Order: sequence, then structure tokens, then C-alpha cells
Amino acid sequence: MFQFHLDHTDTSSSARCGRWETPHGVVETPAFMPVGTRGSVKGVWPHQLAETGAQMILANTYHLTLRPGEKVVQELGGLHEFMGWNGPILTDSGGFQVFSLGALRQLDDDRVVFKSHIDGSILDLTPARAMQIQEDLGADCIMCLDECPPHDAPVSKLEEAVARTTRWAQICRETHKRADQALFGIVQGGIHPQLRERSAEGLLKLDFPGYAVGGLSVGESPEEMYRTLDFTTPMLPKEKPRYLMGVGRPIDIIEGVLRGIDLFDCVMPTRNARNATAFTSHGTVKMRNLKYQTDREPLDSECDCSTCQQFSRGFLRHLFTVGEMLGPMLLSVHNLRFYQRVVTELRSAIKSNSAQEFRREHLARMRDGP
Amino acid sequence: MFQFHLDHTDTSSSARCGRWETPHGVVETPAFMPVGTRGSVKGVWPHQLAETGAQMILANTYHLTLRPGEKVVQELGGLHEFMGWNGPILTDSGGFQVFSLGALRQLDDDRVVFKSHIDGSILDLTPARAMQIQEDLGADCIMCLDECPPHDAPVSKLEEAVARTTRWAQICRETHKRADQALFGIVQGGIHPQLRERSAEGLLKLDFPGYAVGGLSVGESPEEMYRTLDFTTPMLPKEKPRYLMGVGRPIDIIEGVLRGIDLFDCVMPTRNARNATAFTSHGTVKMRNLKYQTDREPLDSECDCSTCQQFSRGFLRHLFTVGEMLGPMLLSVHNLRFYQRVVTELRSAIKSNSAQEFRREHLARMRDGP
Repeated sequence: MFQFHLDHTDTSSSARCGRWETPHGVVETPAFMPVGTRGSVKGVWPHQLAETGAQMILANTYHLTLRPGEKVVQELGGLHEFMGWNGPILTDSGGFQVFSLGALRQLDDDRVVFKSHIDGSILDLTPARAMQIQEDLGADCIMCLDECPPHDAPVSKLEEAVARTTRWAQICRETHKRADQALFGIVQGGIHPQLRERSAEGLLKLDFPGYAVGGLSVGESPEEMYRTLDFTTPMLPKEKPRYLMGVGRPIDIIEGVLRGIDLFDCVMPTRNARNATAFTSHGTVKMRNLKYQTDREPLDSECDCSTCQQFSRGFLRHLFTVGEMLGPMLLSVHNLRFYQRVVTELRSAIKSNSAQEFRREHLARMRDGP
Repeated sequence: MFQFHLDHTDTSSSARCGRWETPHGVVETPAFMPVGTRGSVKGVWPHQLAETGAQMILANTYHLTLRPGEKVVQELGGLHEFMGWNGPILTDSGGFQVFSLGALRQLDDDRVVFKSHIDGSILDLTPARAMQIQEDLGADCIMCLDECPPHDAPVSKLEEAVARTTRWAQICRETHKRADQALFGIVQGGIHPQLRERSAEGLLKLDFPGYAVGGLSVGESPEEMYRTLDFTTPMLPKEKPRYLMGVGRPIDIIEGVLRGIDLFDCVMPTRNARNATAFTSHGTVKMRNLKYQTDREPLDSECDCSTCQQFSRGFLRHLFTVGEMLGPMLLSVHNLRFYQRVVTELRSAIKSNSAQEFRREHLARMRDGP
């Protein structure tokens, strides 16, 4: 049910392209998954999301457990029917938000207990509970509960997190029952080769259908992240999908692909859109800039998205200046399309063994910023 | 360029249906115009607006003059190109907002001077300036500058407003030059037959291509509004379009149509959508209501809008509960479609001489509220 076909590996890098079969359709890899935190990719209708080229999307277990609750999602037909997205969906385990949002939490070897950031209610998250929640939500691909320490945690803490993540992965593997869901293990270990290796070894024994690289994009430098990928992805089986969690800028995605990553997710295209920041063929652009006031050109003349086909920079600037919600809506579609164009072009570049060249050209064009 | 064809008048009421030709296409009447205050009907892409059945829309001169300024709109190709709406557009004169928002204003016989509610800058609005602004914006149908007193103003104030509105209409008529714009006069006079008659008489002499009924929906009761229409619309020429400004609830539109009104505009469908209030075949509904939590049914099973085709009440409730912008987006499309279904069905009812019956059926169905 989750066949992963590797079509080609670039001769000049570890970049590979393939097709991943899921119960809700095929995902061409490398793939970028837009984030629908609470069951909605902000500002975008599901059919518009499909029109940008998105094939798989992500939803956040933590947020959906708190509101509306996984049982409510289940009663409403499961995540696909709930949010009106009939393509593949991935849910994270809730662990990341617990560690990033959870000021009030208690962690021991069995569980993490935390207070909701909304109403202070208590959620007792064990590996088994993370499985139950994600089974109820019903995504195609789900994640083991992991511990994701901050990047500046001492090595002893990182070691603890690796040990706990491995133990929890084993419980998740044993607990998870739904055959129509692929359960991924998450490699932790910060930026340390030995810890990453220890983490990967423990998880590989459990023979997951895919592996995620967690614990990156948590404050380390891009170079540290790339270096970590340099030694981490080779530890993961070639024949299974590899997912770099929560990454990142377009350049980070390109660098990740060059190092053998297949799946990415990030809130950046939609979050930046709400902050009036556009990704374009020539770099990022602040749409509130006065220089666009009477600019009749499309935002990005090389872009084929609905926004660039219909609206001027001047109109976009106006929408953000006055605070019309159409501004974030139009820019979200554009930014999401930009990300999809990056991965689409990457897939072509890999097929013609020119992924390195694609990276160079991308950097050369980004004169206005990454 | 602005032919108005009356196709049929209902035998049981003054309701009539017709087609109004404009430089940007034909409008079937009775018509409801969604409001795009600042160049955007909030939460809706222009093509979605067309899909709801909207044929003509309204934009607000006051807001667009302040931001981005009419000269900016002109440089960006005029209102149609600016906002990506190639159908007919109507702009008001700016007068209504001056009187409703303008705490800091000075009125004399020649002008109204007011301070911007945004930055305190001064706008000196004369009838000639109202024409220049609307010519620069470039809508198909534009409005004379009028004075719109509150409904509880003393009769002497209402008389003054009628006199001023008539004098200003004459200046507008003389000043306005664009042949591709239809300039409407606005009848004032509160709820008083004699004042309405005086106002209509003065305007009719100027032979406008259409007439608006202003000064209603400003705090009077629905019954007072209907009574005012009872004696006001017969004063207006049958062969020209009649526009009831800023009205209203679906029932108000039906009552207006029965009294011979052809054009309506109101922010209600989109404003209510943002407040989680839906118009349905059985009345208005509060989407945050807990009873919808696990409701898999569409919002309105009789509705053919994109929202009702794809999403459950439970999902809509969730979106409003967590504050996702998709909630207002989905509900705006639904509410706008509801309004268009009302006028579409009204046009059919008129053709079969059953407008009164349509009104009765509508009221009988609205068990959950108007």
C-alpha cells in the first residue's frame, strides 16, 4: 500500500526522484507538503492548494487534539473528509509542539504531560496515546512520538532524547495497528554524528516504512543543518522515503534534496504570505514597499499562479496596506505555487542529472534575498 | 450604452425584471451587488464572486480615495483592472461614509470637508470633486454627491438635505463628462412623502439615466422603509433602473423588489460571514453553535455553492472556533450565493407573476430568523 519507487538518482549528488504510493494517491518526490496546522492551510481553499501542485499536505496532531479533538475529527469522517482534502495527508506526533510550545510540561521516560496553551487542560501524551490520536485522525502517514530538544541542549540531554525517542518508537511500532497508515520513525541526535548514528541504528532495527530527520531547523545554522544531513541521510535506507521535518526556505529544500531527502514541510510560504513577504524568481520581496504603489506588473512575471495571472503588484500592495484579507489569500497561493515550482523543477533537474546546476542557478537568481 | 430593457412586470405587485446593458456587460435585474469596499469583496477571489452569480459589484469611493487614492487606481488601469473584476462596477459618491463615519466634518452649501478616519488628512468633497474622483476610479455607474441625514434628524434638517442634494445633483450632472459612465441621482427626504416628492421632482428635471433611493436603512424600522418605498418608487420613471442603496436583509430585498426596485447592495452577506452567521434556506444560523460540532451535513442542503458541496457544518464550526481565516472565506462564498439565489429566484417568480407568493414562501421557510 505504500510502495516507494525510486525512479532516478542524480549522478552529481545524492538527490533522487521517485513516486510514493499512498492510499490517497501517488506523491512525486522530492515533494513539498504545505502545512494545514488546524485542518486548514491558512487562507487557501483545498482545490486551490491542489492547483498549486501540492500532492500531500501536513496537519498538526497537537493542535487538532486540543481543538476540535481527534474523536470529533473521526466522527466527521476522518481528516480527509473533515478538511476537504482527498489527497495524501501526514500528521506529526504532537511531540514537536509539546516541546516548542509547552512551557508547562513534565517529561519522564513514559510520557510527556502538558497543559494546553488554550485553556490549561491536561494532555497526557504517551507513545501509545500518540498512536491512538493519529489513528483516529486518519492521515496516510503518521509519526512516532519523539523528543525534540532545543539545538543548544547539552550533549547529555541530547543522549537522553535519543534513548527516549528510540524506546518510544518501539512502543509506537508495537501499538500502531492501521495498515492504511505508514508509521515513520524520527531520527534525533542534534548535530552530532555519533548521536545521529545511535538514533538511526535503534530505529532501523524496527524496520519502519520511512524515516524522518527531526531535531533540525530548531535554531542551528543552515550550515550545521546541511552538515548534519551530509552524515545522517546516508544512514537511512535508500529504498525508503526520507522526510526532513519543518524545513524550510527554498534553498534549504534544495540543499536537503541534494543530500537525499524526499519530503519536506514548512509553514513559511503561508506565514510569509500573511506577513506580506513574497517568494519570487528573483528572491523575497516585501509587498508593502512603496515602490510597488503604481506597479502594474504581476508579482513574478515567471510565475504561472492564479495571483500572478490576474493581479498587479500595485493591487497586492494596496491590499496589504489597508489590511484586506484578500492580500494574504492571494500571496499564499503565489508562495505555495513558488514552492511547488521549486520541487517540480528539482524533479526535472534530477532526471537530467543537473541538480547541482539547479542549485547554482537558483542562488544566482536570488539577488533580492534567499 | 446603458440601455435598460424591462422584460416583464409582475401582475400582482410592482416587481419587474429586466436587463441593464453597461460597458462591462449586462446585468439582469433585480440584481444584488456585493460590496468591495476597498477594491475587494472581503474574503473572496473575483472569479469566486462571479461563480456565486454576482454580475455587478460596488466599491466605495470614500475608502478608495483615502487609500490608495483615485489617481493610484487610475494609474493601475482603473477599478476593473485594479481589482480584477471585468464585470460592471458601481461606486457611491463618498457622501454616505462622510456622513456616517465623519465625526470631524464641516458642511456648507458647497462642500463637505472632513478629516480622514485613518490619518486625519483633510478631504474637501465638492460635487465636482466627487465626479472627478469617480471618473478617475472608472466604474460603470456612479453616484451624485448627496447629503444623507440620520433617520431621527428634524424635518428642517431633512429639508435642507433635500435642497442641498438637488443643488449638488445639478452640479454633478453638469460636471460629469465620461460617456461610458451612468450617473445616478439620489432621492432623499427621509420617510416623508412630501420631501421625497420634492427631492424626486428636482432630480427628474435633470433627466438622469437612473435613480437611487438614499437615506434608508439608516436606523428607521423595516416597516417605515417599506412604506417609504411604497410612495417613493412610483415617483421614479418606470423605464429607468432604480437602486435602493445599502439594503439589506434578504427579506428587505424581496420587499424592495415587490415595490419596483431593481438594484441592491449590502455588506451583510460578507460581514455576517465574518461573524460566523450564515444565511440558509431555513433562516440565519450561528456557525459557532455547539450543536454543529459533529454534524457531517452541509450547511444548507438546498444550496449549490462551493462551500456546501465540499464541507460539513462540523468543519465550518471548527474553523470559526479556532479562528481560521478559511471560515470567513467559506461562509462568504455561501452567503453571497444565498443572496444571488434570492434574486435569481425572484427574477423567475416575476416572470411567472408569482413574486408575492415567493415572498410568502420565503417568510414561511425562515423559521430560524430573518
